[in-house]
Amino acid sequence: MSKYVLGQNQYGKAENRIVKIVRKGNEGSWHEIRDLNVSVALRGEFRDVHLTGDNGNCLPTDTTKNTVYAFAKEHGVTSPEDFGTRLAQHFTNSQSVIHESQVRLEEYAWDRIPVPTRRDQHSFVRSGQEVRTSQVTFNKHTGQLQIVSGLKDLTVLNSTNAEFHGYIKDKYTTLQEAYDRILATKVTARWAYSAAAAADPDTDWDRLYKKARRLMLEAFAETYSYSLQQTLNAMAERIMDHCPQINEVRLNLPNKHHFLVDLEPFGLKNDNEVYFAADRMYGLIEATVHRDGITPVIATSDWITA
Amino acid sequence: MSKYVLGQNQYGKAENRIVKIVRKGNEGSWHEIRDLNVSVALRGEFRDVHLTGDNGNCLPTDTTKNTVYAFAKEHGVTSPEDFGTRLAQHFTNSQSVIHESQVRLEEYAWDRIPVPTRRDQHSFVRSGQEVRTSQVTFNKHTGQLQIVSGLKDLTVLNSTNAEFHGYIKDKYTTLQEAYDRILATKVTARWAYSAAAAADPDTDWDRLYKKARRLMLEAFAETYSYSLQQTLNAMAERIMDHCPQINEVRLNLPNKHHFLVDLEPFGLKNDNEVYFAADRMYGLIEATVHRDGITPVIATSDWITA
Amino acid sequence: MSKYVLGQNQYGKAENRIVKIVRKGNEGSWHEIRDLNVSVALRGEFRDVHLTGDNGNCLPTDTTKNTVYAFAKEHGVTSPEDFGTRLAQHFTNSQSVIHESQVRLEEYAWDRIPVPTRRDQHSFVRSGQEVRTSQVTFNKHTGQLQIVSGLKDLTVLNSTNAEFHGYIKDKYTTLQEAYDRILATKVTARWAYSAAAAADPDTDWDRLYKKARRLMLEAFAETYSYSLQQTLNAMAERIMDHCPQINEVRLNLPNKHHFLVDLEPFGLKNDNEVYFAADRMYGLIEATVHRDGITPVIATSDWITA
Amino acid sequence: MSKYVLGQNQYGKAENRIVKIVRKGNEGSWHEIRDLNVSVALRGEFRDVHLTGDNGNCLPTDTTKNTVYAFAKEHGVTSPEDFGTRLAQHFTNSQSVIHESQVRLEEYAWDRIPVPTRRDQHSFVRSGQEVRTSQVTFNKHTGQLQIVSGLKDLTVLNSTNAEFHGYIKDKYTTLQEAYDRILATKVTARWAYSAAAAADPDTDWDRLYKKARRLMLEAFAETYSYSLQQTLNAMAERIMDHCPQINEVRLNLPNKHHFLVDLEPFGLKNDNEVYFAADRMYGLIEATVHRDGITPVIATSDWITA
Repeated sequence: MSKYVLGQNQYGKAENRIVKIVRKGNEGSWHEIRDLNVSVALRGEFRDVHLTGDNGNCLPTDTTKNTVYAFAKEHGVTSPEDFGTRLAQHFTNSQSVIHESQVRLEEYAWDRIPVPTRRDQHSFVRSGQEVRTSQVTFNKHTGQLQIVSGLKDLTVLNSTNAEFHGYIKDKYTTLQEAYDRILATKVTARWAYSAAAAADPDTDWDRLYKKARRLMLEAFAETYSYSLQQTLNAMAERIMDHCPQINEVRLNLPNKHHFLVDLEPFGLKNDNEVYFAADRMYGLIEATVHRDGITPVIATSDWITA
Repeated sequence: MSKYVLGQNQYGKAENRIVKIVRKGNEGSWHEIRDLNVSVALRGEFRDVHLTGDNGNCLPTDTTKNTVYAFAKEHGVTSPEDFGTRLAQHFTNSQSVIHESQVRLEEYAWDRIPVPTRRDQHSFVRSGQEVRTSQVTFNKHTGQLQIVSGLKDLTVLNSTNAEFHGYIKDKYTTLQEAYDRILATKVTARWAYSAAAAADPDTDWDRLYKKARRLMLEAFAETYSYSLQQTLNAMAERIMDHCPQINEVRLNLPNKHHFLVDLEPFGLKNDNEVYFAADRMYGLIEATVHRDGITPVIATSDWITA
Repeated sequence: MSKYVLGQNQYGKAENRIVKIVRKGNEGSWHEIRDLNVSVALRGEFRDVHLTGDNGNCLPTDTTKNTVYAFAKEHGVTSPEDFGTRLAQHFTNSQSVIHESQVRLEEYAWDRIPVPTRRDQHSFVRSGQEVRTSQVTFNKHTGQLQIVSGLKDLTVLNSTNAEFHGYIKDKYTTLQEAYDRILATKVTARWAYSAAAAADPDTDWDRLYKKARRLMLEAFAETYSYSLQQTLNAMAERIMDHCPQINEVRLNLPNKHHFLVDLEPFGLKNDNEVYFAADRMYGLIEATVHRDGITPVIATSDWITA
Repeated sequence: MSKYVLGQNQYGKAENRIVKIVRKGNEGSWHEIRDLNVSVALRGEFRDVHLTGDNGNCLPTDTTKNTVYAFAKEHGVTSPEDFGTRLAQHFTNSQSVIHESQVRLEEYAWDRIPVPTRRDQHSFVRSGQEVRTSQVTFNKHTGQLQIVSGLKDLTVLNSTNAEFHGYIKDKYTTLQEAYDRILATKVTARWAYSAAAAADPDTDWDRLYKKARRLMLEAFAETYSYSLQQTLNAMAERIMDHCPQINEVRLNLPNKHHFLVDLEPFGLKNDNEVYFAADRMYGLIEATVHRDGITPVIATSDWITA
């Protein structure tokens, strides 16, 4: 007998890049586009695959890739959440040895290119910087369908209405207190949907994404900030205030420092006008906010479990 | 005497990241933002710096950095082109040993975050994927001020109205002719302004940038394409058709291949619906188009001169 | 009372880039270099910071940065693990409101440049592609010191001795069974040290890093592979076979596909000679292997907790 | 007639990733690997392709890709320079409409994994950070074969023996003179071979690459530096001193600033021990050095021609 134990393990094809075109309207001349990056992870009885060279329980990653493309044709792509759910349920249910499947999706946004001269539409330009994300997990033993959605790379900046002072001073403190500073961050957000929302076929995932994104932006803009932590909390609460389908929000907010440049050596006064935008190092603020009575499910960024 | 010759050389501080906030309106509560990445290159009499360890002719890169920040305060940032011109002229004129200066600028775009509850404005979200670029060169011996502007990372896609056939077939040909394909590319564009436009203090650089960007998008969308080369040419000509200030356009267009996935093994017909978006390899199409009678000035992407 | 709960949260300065030079030998002319990227995360009583704008419990991220640099001078950098331990213990113990600190470190390797003409040494060239990693966590309530070390970006390839067959076939299977294939991956490895090793001041972290790296390479090279999972398991077990200080190994192995190019259209036979090295999509194989009786601590890559 | 002129243009398949395995020795059990990224650019009579939609002169980029893979089988890959030459000559000569071809190659280095237990060899680990580069251009009208080789991403550091002072001071100067500083850079080097070396079938390209790399490292290490420009010049001259086949060297050297951290606020003296390694901004030093009497051919990094 081995003195070693095979612990948590999973596998699948990652980063399947898929573009789906849908033709609508007059002779199919109105095109719509969904542009996804789909990663699959399967969990189950894979001990022999690891230990004996017997692949009898292994559904090849190549097959998971084929399934992603075939499902886009068979079932369409109405949203990352719907597409992910269909795939996760399929993989979990298709083989007895697969107990749980997880599908992670990124979606890239496109705007239409306005063309005055025609009414058909098939021209697009990539829009925005942020990437929409979703992770769908289905376990057949618990019957649980878990949907965590979010975004990454949404960069925002307030040029005033931010302070930072009253903090601990110790032997290594040199920071000056700030009463008017730039507050900028690149938002990574994840929010967990309730089991009821995940199970409801009428949940409008695209609408909820746009709504959560808008609420975060508004909370960021409207919060007079005494710390990035406070802004983080306001953004998370704002989402849950208006989205009853969402139980939990986790935000990872790098503090993108903008340092006021010292222009006094040149006889100039820098009245919060000219800043150096630094790359590194940066503050990194991370927190989960959730409804009372809920057990949080979104993983923290730890390398080791709490 | 050395058997070696010091050829073309230049130096300066690269990638000075600068954010400029301007306060306007009622008590300065209406903020505007310019977000730039500024690189400086100086050319001149730097033989001793290279050969003898004598730095008497060397204006330190640190000083060029300081100048960038100080000028943002002293002169403001009305556009990358104006800011670059002021800097290039300053460096060239400030030291007798500097004969020519080149300033390269990237600008990152921000949208306002709409906030229903207030009228002041200081909240922004990074917008678009593309980066606006400009390169300003001033030589005091020729008196020439050369402005080449453009953009990079503008990704566009037509989901139909593109064909590719009638090409050369040789021993290594396997490509099937295409009569309806996706055409997608990530545009890098540079356009050279006439000397008259560069010298005219009334040239509206922001308006010209938006106009050239819009014209390229429209030409991309409206051109029924038989090759990416043809689309490239249409985009370049469209800019010059409507912008008399622009004499020359160079485009670098990677052909972002979207391959129709073969779904027949699964009993499915893929009627131009499901595509695999490939990363590499990719076609790369590059060309300069210029007005007749003009000597092109925009460098090609060669490592070696033609 | 709020209907929301502040869950797991942490903050600190990330990516403090620090280079430490040590002078030894004859008049300090023998230099040694340590090149680190250090990120700090503090956990504790930060509710008010998030909710009320009161920063009284907040040790600024700027101070955590200063501490990193000061400690490099005060205590030296003998290894990432030692340096991280000292920092984690300091932060946790320095303020009553901080309960736990986590320090993540990357180390970049440098080789000496051999110079025949001299005996002093101060010239270096960056070596290898891989980055050494470590994560040190200290909690003052449990007294637990947890050290998880590893590496990332170690790319390896076997040009034979790999097969893949005998797997599940379903409706979406098109993959051909392989009896001689390239097996290549870019290793991300983490291994958890026992509490005894973490507490032992004589643990030689640099030696253990080199040993674990060498063992993984040897296991990769020597394992005749029927799946990347099997190779993964062999690599993990090999480390624990020879390193009693290590209780648990987690590996993330992207399957960097090398596809045999079909040269038959050109009348050529490709006898496992010419491959296309693909970027995406790729298989992704992840697993933890640990000693029997041990509770694994290394976090999986889940977004949601199991 | 058009008022526009089609200027410099080129196209081809970029970034063909190819891995070539060669089996040698006892039953082919000794494997060798070449790992390349190959980009093709064709120049010639492509006016109609751009203007009329007639692709009769267009050799598809897909065909250039096929040719790269087929040639690896037909002719082998003995070096990037040899492989590039064969491809450039083929493309230029294969079609009357193609006047000139340029092939750019990157090569990624692999070391063998030492395995005590066996004598066959098929296991490799990616080594070094630098990428070997080559660009081969063949024009059938001039008959000129031009080979420019080099490397990129070779990071080096001297922890002493570097000063910087005696420079110009102006109104914007704040830099303190330095009498002992870290000098670090990430080398991009290109060197042009003589026509004789390019035409000589006995030129040992692999040996020359290793020699030029070693000479640059030695010159960097041995030069007591008063400026990065001076170090640049020494590196370029050192190559030409010992490689008669090389006529011209161009180096692009970012000055990777390492700033001494001010530890005085913490009562500590920083005696050139603890540095902050900055990302941006950075000095950028670029120059060509060539033999007297030679016309330099390596393109400068200008966007616009001199």
